[in-house]
Amino acid sequence: MNLLDKTIRNLVIANRILAHEGVVDAYGHVSVRHPQHPDRYLLSCSVSPELVEASDIKEYALDSVAIVKDGHHPYLERFIHGAIYEARPDIHAVIHSHADEVLPFSITREPLIPVIHVASDIGAHIGVWDIHDHFGDTNLLVSDIAQGRDLACCLGHDRTVLMRGHGFTTTGQSLLGAIKAAVYMPRNARILMEAKRLGGPLTPLSPGEIEVRTGVDPESPQMQRAWEYWSRRAGVPPQSGS
Amino acid sequence: MNLLDKTIRNLVIANRILAHEGVVDAYGHVSVRHPQHPDRYLLSCSVSPELVEASDIKEYALDSVAIVKDGHHPYLERFIHGAIYEARPDIHAVIHSHADEVLPFSITREPLIPVIHVASDIGAHIGVWDIHDHFGDTNLLVSDIAQGRDLACCLGHDRTVLMRGHGFTTTGQSLLGAIKAAVYMPRNARILMEAKRLGGPLTPLSPGEIEVRTGVDPESPQMQRAWEYWSRRAGVPPQSGS
Amino acid sequence: MNLLDKTIRNLVIANRILAHEGVVDAYGHVSVRHPQHPDRYLLSCSVSPELVEASDIKEYALDSVAIVKDGHHPYLERFIHGAIYEARPDIHAVIHSHADEVLPFSITREPLIPVIHVASDIGAHIGVWDIHDHFGDTNLLVSDIAQGRDLACCLGHDRTVLMRGHGFTTTGQSLLGAIKAAVYMPRNARILMEAKRLGGPLTPLSPGEIEVRTGVDPESPQMQRAWEYWSRRAGVPPQSGS
Amino acid sequence: MNLLDKTIRNLVIANRILAHEGVVDAYGHVSVRHPQHPDRYLLSCSVSPELVEASDIKEYALDSVAIVKDGHHPYLERFIHGAIYEARPDIHAVIHSHADEVLPFSITREPLIPVIHVASDIGAHIGVWDIHDHFGDTNLLVSDIAQGRDLACCLGHDRTVLMRGHGFTTTGQSLLGAIKAAVYMPRNARILMEAKRLGGPLTPLSPGEIEVRTGVDPESPQMQRAWEYWSRRAGVPPQSGS
Repeated sequence: MNLLDKTIRNLVIANRILAHEGVVDAYGHVSVRHPQHPDRYLLSCSVSPELVEASDIKEYALDSVAIVKDGHHPYLERFIHGAIYEARPDIHAVIHSHADEVLPFSITREPLIPVIHVASDIGAHIGVWDIHDHFGDTNLLVSDIAQGRDLACCLGHDRTVLMRGHGFTTTGQSLLGAIKAAVYMPRNARILMEAKRLGGPLTPLSPGEIEVRTGVDPESPQMQRAWEYWSRRAGVPPQSGS
Repeated sequence: MNLLDKTIRNLVIANRILAHEGVVDAYGHVSVRHPQHPDRYLLSCSVSPELVEASDIKEYALDSVAIVKDGHHPYLERFIHGAIYEARPDIHAVIHSHADEVLPFSITREPLIPVIHVASDIGAHIGVWDIHDHFGDTNLLVSDIAQGRDLACCLGHDRTVLMRGHGFTTTGQSLLGAIKAAVYMPRNARILMEAKRLGGPLTPLSPGEIEVRTGVDPESPQMQRAWEYWSRRAGVPPQSGS
Repeated sequence: MNLLDKTIRNLVIANRILAHEGVVDAYGHVSVRHPQHPDRYLLSCSVSPELVEASDIKEYALDSVAIVKDGHHPYLERFIHGAIYEARPDIHAVIHSHADEVLPFSITREPLIPVIHVASDIGAHIGVWDIHDHFGDTNLLVSDIAQGRDLACCLGHDRTVLMRGHGFTTTGQSLLGAIKAAVYMPRNARILMEAKRLGGPLTPLSPGEIEVRTGVDPESPQMQRAWEYWSRRAGVPPQSGS
Repeated sequence: MNLLDKTIRNLVIANRILAHEGVVDAYGHVSVRHPQHPDRYLLSCSVSPELVEASDIKEYALDSVAIVKDGHHPYLERFIHGAIYEARPDIHAVIHSHADEVLPFSITREPLIPVIHVASDIGAHIGVWDIHDHFGDTNLLVSDIAQGRDLACCLGHDRTVLMRGHGFTTTGQSLLGAIKAAVYMPRNARILMEAKRLGGPLTPLSPGEIEVRTGVDPESPQMQRAWEYWSRRAGVPPQSGS
């Protein structure tokens, strides 16, 4: 299997994992930067993640125009992906989700911070982007390049950004890193909410701890264990040798 | 497949979707206005939504009397549907549910407002109808025309109305619009409750945002993606061409 | 099928329903008064409700001694059932559960009251029985006749009683009535907790509403719809004619 | 089946039970002391608990060095197990988990105490171990003998210890005792959190009640019922005679 086919295969698995783990439903999407053309990214056309097949994966330029005009319906919000790949050469995977547990932090001023070790991948600081600030009353969807770039600007050097009343977008240097951030983001949010209600002082991960945990090799046995676990649960066991 | 058969087929799918997504259980129901006779509506006889078949779908006049007297047991609360279709010619689908997450707002004075973009279909204002106000001690069920009309009056020009200690009723200009409102209504309620507990100021959807999001074409790829997703999950994949 | 066989068949279904709906797990049990011998009751031997078969159902006298000594292991807590049937001739079914949502009310002084119409069967008043009051430090299990009678005394004329740090016991004039109370008891508890956190005044069911809803015929289409729904979900569809 | 094979078989079942009950996911592990060599323990190599097979079970000395160097990838955190078996000859099973419901108590100063009878096995006192106290900024994983021994020291004579921002470790005199503690630990945590929010005084298990409940024979019908229930649910029914 060549590099592009393998990348597409893994992106299909990623779609199924995120659906099975409840990170996305009919909406939400995951992309990877093209492994050979860093000025392109791979993203499914407008299909629910649970149903994505390899033939649904399309190539887009960083302005989110499809490389091949084959008449497919693209995701309306593909500009999230293009704008982030454009602004952040270090990022190789982007996930957008509406997971319920995260949303309360998007409509209040309470900061969402990582408090559990498995969620360190979401990053030490997470801002809230409000589309209303620069674009007024909209349907809240990131529907053009200007909105995508404004979101990428708010993301800045962070790993993750909240979107007011809408969801969140997280990123990774690898696909597996982004998946891990996306899966543990809602769980970290729920644990943080519960801890706040218990009251009293609260001990988050320290900046040093987040730093130490950054950049674990996605090929390490520990990371591969998660990939194998999630893909089997989603009914798409990894092929041997992949 | 003719228009009526297709409408009945979609209503069966709607029943299964609402059951699978946890919006209804043994109780709760969904109806559509008759596609050819606007003074009639289609609703299952007294069967749990998860088990509804095409042969269970019956026609009722707006006074909720069955068009054909075939001895079936009707839902006791069909008057909810008839009275709303009578009062609101713009409405073509009605869903009644007891979903747990919504009920706390029906027994307190805390207003339930849309805070997530996918729930904009529930409408900007949601009142609470208390059957006790005009009918005293009852079994809380909407069991006759007078009660149905009183509920429709409380609904007014809104999309959704809460029913104290009982549940909610939401509506749509299309069946898919009503399903979307019903599926995201409990999720919006839970997110709002969690946000309130985080404390501090809270940013709901603006009236302008709700307005912009109103009236999305149910035939658009984005809406059809949800229909396909929910129907497949419920084990009733949409027929090609339907 | 004779009356006893039919009663046993329904009791097996009841075990499966309660397991499938999450009311019981490895622990918890359901009994019915013997249809021909009111001084006996039917209860499974020590088997998890999810796994109960007709051959597991045994007969006990009201002192909770097995009618037939066949060497089976009985539930340690069968005295709950015997003592309630002894004290309350009007009761024909008893269910004991540890459902999580109910337990917070058993260890605080916050009264658990019915706030949703489907939970009216739990009754207007629910007391808390603390085994420690009369029996000091125990394993908290109702392990003999004296403890069973003390619990029945605390139940008094109510439908349901909480057991501190342990669970609850609910009852019915029919098996289906008791199942409905047991299934909606945890949901009512969760909704009440959420409503309390929203703050402000709260509207429970009125005594008159509970009264109106009492004694619905278990053979009515509305009740049979729930029985059919729950039994199908549990994988034990009711036999035609049963 | 000889004693070692039976112990390995039960350890595989334990892995599956903990995965199915949501106590562990891709991460988390369970070990038992070797039945013939008390200075060794049995633990899977680096595999998700849901996927563990008998051939994955390896033997380790108390310093957590593998007895047989067969090139397998061990769990990074096996030192948790070795250090506890070293310090506590009375302990024969150890479970490490990241269950969400428990984590809020690990990052606040609110003590986690047993309040429901089925959770008495977690023990009357549960401390919080913060790896940062003695080891500064780390990846939070218990990655060497010194860290394992520091954790075991914090466990002291207790049954269970929380690990800040990470999870918990619980233990048992038997494998089934440890499983029961691990399964009911998250449920007890959630019930305690809910009870705290209801407000007012709260009645936990008394020290005497915990004492009475300690040391139930894992071969008793009541305990075997839980083993049978959990193993069947996990798809690994116990073999007859095992």
